[in-house]
Amino acid sequence: MINQLVKKIKETKAPIVVGLDPMISFIPKHILEEAKEVSEDPLEQIAHGIYEYNKGIVDRVWDLIPAVKPQIAMYEQFGVPGLVAFKKTVDYCKKKGLVVIGDIKRGDIGSTSAAYAVGHLGKIEWNGKKIAPFDEDFATVNPYLGSDGINPFIDICKEEKKGIFVLVKTSNPSSGEFQDQLIDGKPLYELVGEKVAEWGDGAMGDDYSYVGAVVGATYPEMGKVLRKIMPKTYILVPGYGAQGGKGKDLVHFFNEDGLGAIVNSSRGIIAAYQQDAYKQFGEKNYAEASRAAVEDMILDINQALEGRN
Amino acid sequence: MINQLVKKIKETKAPIVVGLDPMISFIPKHILEEAKEVSEDPLEQIAHGIYEYNKGIVDRVWDLIPAVKPQIAMYEQFGVPGLVAFKKTVDYCKKKGLVVIGDIKRGDIGSTSAAYAVGHLGKIEWNGKKIAPFDEDFATVNPYLGSDGINPFIDICKEEKKGIFVLVKTSNPSSGEFQDQLIDGKPLYELVGEKVAEWGDGAMGDDYSYVGAVVGATYPEMGKVLRKIMPKTYILVPGYGAQGGKGKDLVHFFNEDGLGAIVNSSRGIIAAYQQDAYKQFGEKNYAEASRAAVEDMILDINQALEGRN
Repeated sequence: MINQLVKKIKETKAPIVVGLDPMISFIPKHILEEAKEVSEDPLEQIAHGIYEYNKGIVDRVWDLIPAVKPQIAMYEQFGVPGLVAFKKTVDYCKKKGLVVIGDIKRGDIGSTSAAYAVGHLGKIEWNGKKIAPFDEDFATVNPYLGSDGINPFIDICKEEKKGIFVLVKTSNPSSGEFQDQLIDGKPLYELVGEKVAEWGDGAMGDDYSYVGAVVGATYPEMGKVLRKIMPKTYILVPGYGAQGGKGKDLVHFFNEDGLGAIVNSSRGIIAAYQQDAYKQFGEKNYAEASRAAVEDMILDINQALEGRN
Repeated sequence: MINQLVKKIKETKAPIVVGLDPMISFIPKHILEEAKEVSEDPLEQIAHGIYEYNKGIVDRVWDLIPAVKPQIAMYEQFGVPGLVAFKKTVDYCKKKGLVVIGDIKRGDIGSTSAAYAVGHLGKIEWNGKKIAPFDEDFATVNPYLGSDGINPFIDICKEEKKGIFVLVKTSNPSSGEFQDQLIDGKPLYELVGEKVAEWGDGAMGDDYSYVGAVVGATYPEMGKVLRKIMPKTYILVPGYGAQGGKGKDLVHFFNEDGLGAIVNSSRGIIAAYQQDAYKQFGEKNYAEASRAAVEDMILDINQALEGRN
């Protein structure tokens, strides 16, 4: 799947991923009104609204981008109906040919991580049938529990030719509280980065590993260091746009060939219609606003990449 | 809810929690056979089996124990039907008066952690209705992202009088890879422990904080240190039984008054009937075997606590 992701990035010339992280406040009123008709249950109404909203965006951006990244928390907060909308979103995006990165940030002791890995990337075998429960292409994983918590994911990745992105340096303001602590003069995130490179060596695709890393756009200097520590690792870069990262901050996350990183924007794309720059589209045409925001983001990043030479 | 947990521990004289972490191989054949009748969908069959199996155990142990800890991964691996079984299990245990600790190990950047917190411990407000999506009493949380990732959980805990257990030192063999790294001569888990105490100070129940910690039974010496660093923190202790921890290893996790810790056993209880010590009960009477294993565990821990004086 890492080969497929790289191929799609080359084809679209768009090293970006759209974060499908719906919040109720993003969903246009006409969709929420329609959703009231489908069920008496508030959670089912919201879940219906989320799926229709996502579908509208995906229908207008799928041809421009290689991948989407639904953040499962934004679905899980609405209970079982929310997770039904998550699964429907995953399936719809895959039908559109998009690579789906499940932003699930799971991680646990061995047998438990194995269960998460099977649920999100693998298959259940039962009475002679094989079923893929959530069936994303990639999943994000938390490294705090060490190799025991990561290896079950890598095993499934090898079986299914799928991938993971391990949290190395996250984009949030307090990420340094533990991640920046110095161990023999070296910050923890570098130690985690070294482990990611090591885990990845045993699970290589053609040019990059099945084991990627998450490094926040908000920490460009750290991205530069981590790029060198993990040369064969694809870096998923959250924090562009709403969180403050800009195209020019991102060039060092990429290798010389313009590959090696994929930049996520969530609300900057999916709620573009609520921003001054795109408000002329209006709420009903929210998906057109998202398309324009995707085009602008691709341009911003490609210009930054060209400008570095 | 921490007050309620302490009250129930005193009433039952059982500082233990039963981990409802079902695996297919634990479920007796007669339950799996019955489950085939309910649906054509393999995931729904398994989910039905899981819920019936849990219910059988809960019906035979609820009066002996204060709390249960369903591990969501063991449900999530079966997709949406698995999560339906998780939710039904939470509801059934609460109906039986048990405190429910959702072992979800979530943790993300601020807005995303807020979504998890609402989904598991809080309420959604929509069109004048309030709904609690998963509605556990406690949740386990991963600290790798720092305070940003924890505070949204604490905010909801204060609103709802619920609680969290933050991963400090996990029970698995490779937990030391990052958690034991020395920072100015002090291991990372101690630094996390200090933060847990600090977070907890702002969210106190009567004697203990809403913010608890997870420290593995497999590391008793570290438990002794962490007990001192976090005097007002309830410690959830996994790793008893199947993972190797014994009652006598656990005494230092407790305060002098015999409170301050709650020890989890999962397969040691729920799959007791598969062990030599309880195989006389037979597969059909699996829940009786679980009851006997609970009684033995309570005795083991209370004897160890008495023996320390």
